[in-house]
Amino acid sequence: MKRSLNEVAAFVGGRVVGQNVEVSGISSIAGASPGDLVFVEEEVRLDSAVECPASAVIAGEFAASKAASKPLLIVRQPRLAFARAARLLAPAPAPSPLIHPTAVIDVSVRLGTDVSVAECAVIGEGTEIGKQSRIGAGCVIGANVHIGQDCRLFPNVTVYDRTRLGDRVTVHGGAVLGSDGFGYARDSDTGRYEKFPQIGHLEIEDDVEIGANATIDRGALEVTRVGRGAKIDNLVHIGHNCQIGENVVIAAQTGLSGSIVVEKDVILGGQVGIGEHARIEEGVMLGGQGGVLPNKILRGKGIAFWGTPARPLREYLRQLATLARLSKSGP
Amino acid sequence: MKRSLNEVAAFVGGRVVGQNVEVSGISSIAGASPGDLVFVEEEVRLDSAVECPASAVIAGEFAASKAASKPLLIVRQPRLAFARAARLLAPAPAPSPLIHPTAVIDVSVRLGTDVSVAECAVIGEGTEIGKQSRIGAGCVIGANVHIGQDCRLFPNVTVYDRTRLGDRVTVHGGAVLGSDGFGYARDSDTGRYEKFPQIGHLEIEDDVEIGANATIDRGALEVTRVGRGAKIDNLVHIGHNCQIGENVVIAAQTGLSGSIVVEKDVILGGQVGIGEHARIEEGVMLGGQGGVLPNKILRGKGIAFWGTPARPLREYLRQLATLARLSKSGP
Amino acid sequence: MKRSLNEVAAFVGGRVVGQNVEVSGISSIAGASPGDLVFVEEEVRLDSAVECPASAVIAGEFAASKAASKPLLIVRQPRLAFARAARLLAPAPAPSPLIHPTAVIDVSVRLGTDVSVAECAVIGEGTEIGKQSRIGAGCVIGANVHIGQDCRLFPNVTVYDRTRLGDRVTVHGGAVLGSDGFGYARDSDTGRYEKFPQIGHLEIEDDVEIGANATIDRGALEVTRVGRGAKIDNLVHIGHNCQIGENVVIAAQTGLSGSIVVEKDVILGGQVGIGEHARIEEGVMLGGQGGVLPNKILRGKGIAFWGTPARPLREYLRQLATLARLSKSGP
Repeated sequence: MKRSLNEVAAFVGGRVVGQNVEVSGISSIAGASPGDLVFVEEEVRLDSAVECPASAVIAGEFAASKAASKPLLIVRQPRLAFARAARLLAPAPAPSPLIHPTAVIDVSVRLGTDVSVAECAVIGEGTEIGKQSRIGAGCVIGANVHIGQDCRLFPNVTVYDRTRLGDRVTVHGGAVLGSDGFGYARDSDTGRYEKFPQIGHLEIEDDVEIGANATIDRGALEVTRVGRGAKIDNLVHIGHNCQIGENVVIAAQTGLSGSIVVEKDVILGGQVGIGEHARIEEGVMLGGQGGVLPNKILRGKGIAFWGTPARPLREYLRQLATLARLSKSGP
Repeated sequence: MKRSLNEVAAFVGGRVVGQNVEVSGISSIAGASPGDLVFVEEEVRLDSAVECPASAVIAGEFAASKAASKPLLIVRQPRLAFARAARLLAPAPAPSPLIHPTAVIDVSVRLGTDVSVAECAVIGEGTEIGKQSRIGAGCVIGANVHIGQDCRLFPNVTVYDRTRLGDRVTVHGGAVLGSDGFGYARDSDTGRYEKFPQIGHLEIEDDVEIGANATIDRGALEVTRVGRGAKIDNLVHIGHNCQIGENVVIAAQTGLSGSIVVEKDVILGGQVGIGEHARIEEGVMLGGQGGVLPNKILRGKGIAFWGTPARPLREYLRQLATLARLSKSGP
Repeated sequence: MKRSLNEVAAFVGGRVVGQNVEVSGISSIAGASPGDLVFVEEEVRLDSAVECPASAVIAGEFAASKAASKPLLIVRQPRLAFARAARLLAPAPAPSPLIHPTAVIDVSVRLGTDVSVAECAVIGEGTEIGKQSRIGAGCVIGANVHIGQDCRLFPNVTVYDRTRLGDRVTVHGGAVLGSDGFGYARDSDTGRYEKFPQIGHLEIEDDVEIGANATIDRGALEVTRVGRGAKIDNLVHIGHNCQIGENVVIAAQTGLSGSIVVEKDVILGGQVGIGEHARIEEGVMLGGQGGVLPNKILRGKGIAFWGTPARPLREYLRQLATLARLSKSGP
């Protein structure tokens, strides 16, 4: 979609330095063609951006005083502005809303306006889906599920009964939402396990994105909750009764066992493991493969932790260095 | 479903202290309403249980001598009794058995009585499914598969040809059973990999539960086996030729490469990794993120191991403490 | 399928010592029946192979001079020859090519000759599928996808729009190919995340095999690529913009975050984690659960690394030994 650079500037918040050219797409610097908009976050990359075939460059204030041979769009947060410009220039194709004839939708289901339900998707009794939401092919949505507006479920997603999704939730292919938690009572006489009831449900708040083949379990007796704006990567596991705060970021293959609290603005790297009843407090960062023991608390806005058991990064690095030194000087 | 507390006591094995009230559901203490049955395992929580709105409390012997203002059901194993009571009070809804018209079932398939096959499920040639089993929407069951009685496959499960499931097996959404193992022979001349034959099969014994998006591979030339009563969490991977014993518990995201023996009553935490041909002997416990090298043996009923390579917990903790101490006193 | 041992020898490259018997299948030594072909890689197992009920034994040169009571097929690489013989003796059943009537195939799709599309599979607009490829039940293939010849997609695979697969690619059940990468721009004013555009695509080259429930993301602005002959196990995650070289082997549950380069002939163990922009150079081996930090480079053909952060194996083992020693002698 063609837009003038001034229109983009108005949409993302910024000012144009140079000519008000037309742009029609976004790209990386390496892949740019005329008509594209690119971005730079660091001054050192400005030259390559200006010299590439793109028509204009989003850049930070560092570029404002440079005499550039290409129109610049100066913003405070170039990466953010680029992401927003992408929405303006390359809107996700809105398919003509369609209930495909092979979809199987219970008669009791309430669909908002302009909902799409693709091939062979299945929607159970008593479920409601808000306007403009799109259900991908092969998705199976259980009974009494609530899905808000403008949600997008990619193909082959499974949503168990009574799960609730807010508005603008995106779920990628193969994810499973609301499955039974992993809880058993062991009979000490026989050694056999009896299933502990898993009769709670799962709530996903607005603006959450969930990666491919991720799994999030329902509560055992109460609720598992994923807060507004949280971003969850592929193959993440979230166990029963977890409470994930707003704007939490969880990278791929991280696993949370049961009843964990992750407060808002926490960032968990990939392959992190967290034991039951642990609490990760607001704004903590935990590096990839880090491990948190059951019942532990990690605390400190903007503090980075690493290792298993997770320690403050500086302490962990000092320990690694100590071990390397002792090992070299050893017999 | 309404039951008198005496009926519950008869079902779970225990005795009522106080009035024989009616109960109709289960809940946590925090979420209890009149009519609910709750449970306490520790004396310290007894007061909050007695004071919540629930109608009765399952508790251990510690509560028998207390003068409680609420009927108590005294049992030896309160958590276990609560799980059993849940089965009595909140039985899983038995849908009217139905072969949905969109299911695609080969003419050669043998279905027991009261089998349900949901929307768009596919069942291949020569497969048999025992009575009262329920196949979820979008499941794909291959050819010559055997599924026993009272099994439940949640939606979008994939079962490869010739896999065998016993009775009362539960499989959660997106799990893949009987896929090809990861085995190749490298041609040392060309550096390319030739697929090693993966023509064995997978056997899952009775009373096993398998989590969402878990994967269990078939044997290469023989059989992969998951023993009776084993409980396997979400996103677990079990490689070809593994032998998993009875009542083994494997938490989320743990991975077993090929030809591993896990003897009965072993408990593996989350994100554990085990190398090929290792043996985890009866009753071992291995903590989260622990790693076992190929060909190693872990031994000791009730012994806890941790770390990579896995060591007895006490030894591992001592090493962690040593490192912390040396690192603090270091230059 | 019955073949003379001489025919097998001609196919796999080797010579027969003893009688030119007929063989009709392959098996392990433990599971062998008359008519089977088995193999041994080590002299110590030759006797058990010769004494089992199999009709013939593939073995290395070590066996050529032995007086064996059973026909031998002498080859340089017994495991490789066995894998090839398996292809000759037990060819994968070629189903009569069929477009199942419940498959939903857009009118614009181009299918080569002898393509199979199984029950309830869905294929989107503008997609093309090469001859003899087989699409499993419940697979959802998006729009403008290219799938080459002789590919096999097992059931319930999801392929996002514009993904490209070469020839002879095998994808196991539940895998998700071409999903959005995990990229966001954080608004430093509000703390909320804006989705970074994920508009690149995914290319899988010839002869790749991808395990069950694995996920491979599309490029953000450019391309994620998996090179010719790479083998990827179950539940592996490969993030956006990664470049995986030829004949790379990645074991189960390993995760690669974004923009990683893995050069040819690298072997990654299970549960390995690699940070963004890291580079694993040609021929490196990285042991299970190893971790590589963002931007790091691992270098050295045939060099084994282990631990987090990954170190040369020898160094890592020395450090483990040092820690154990210090911990024992400690106070």
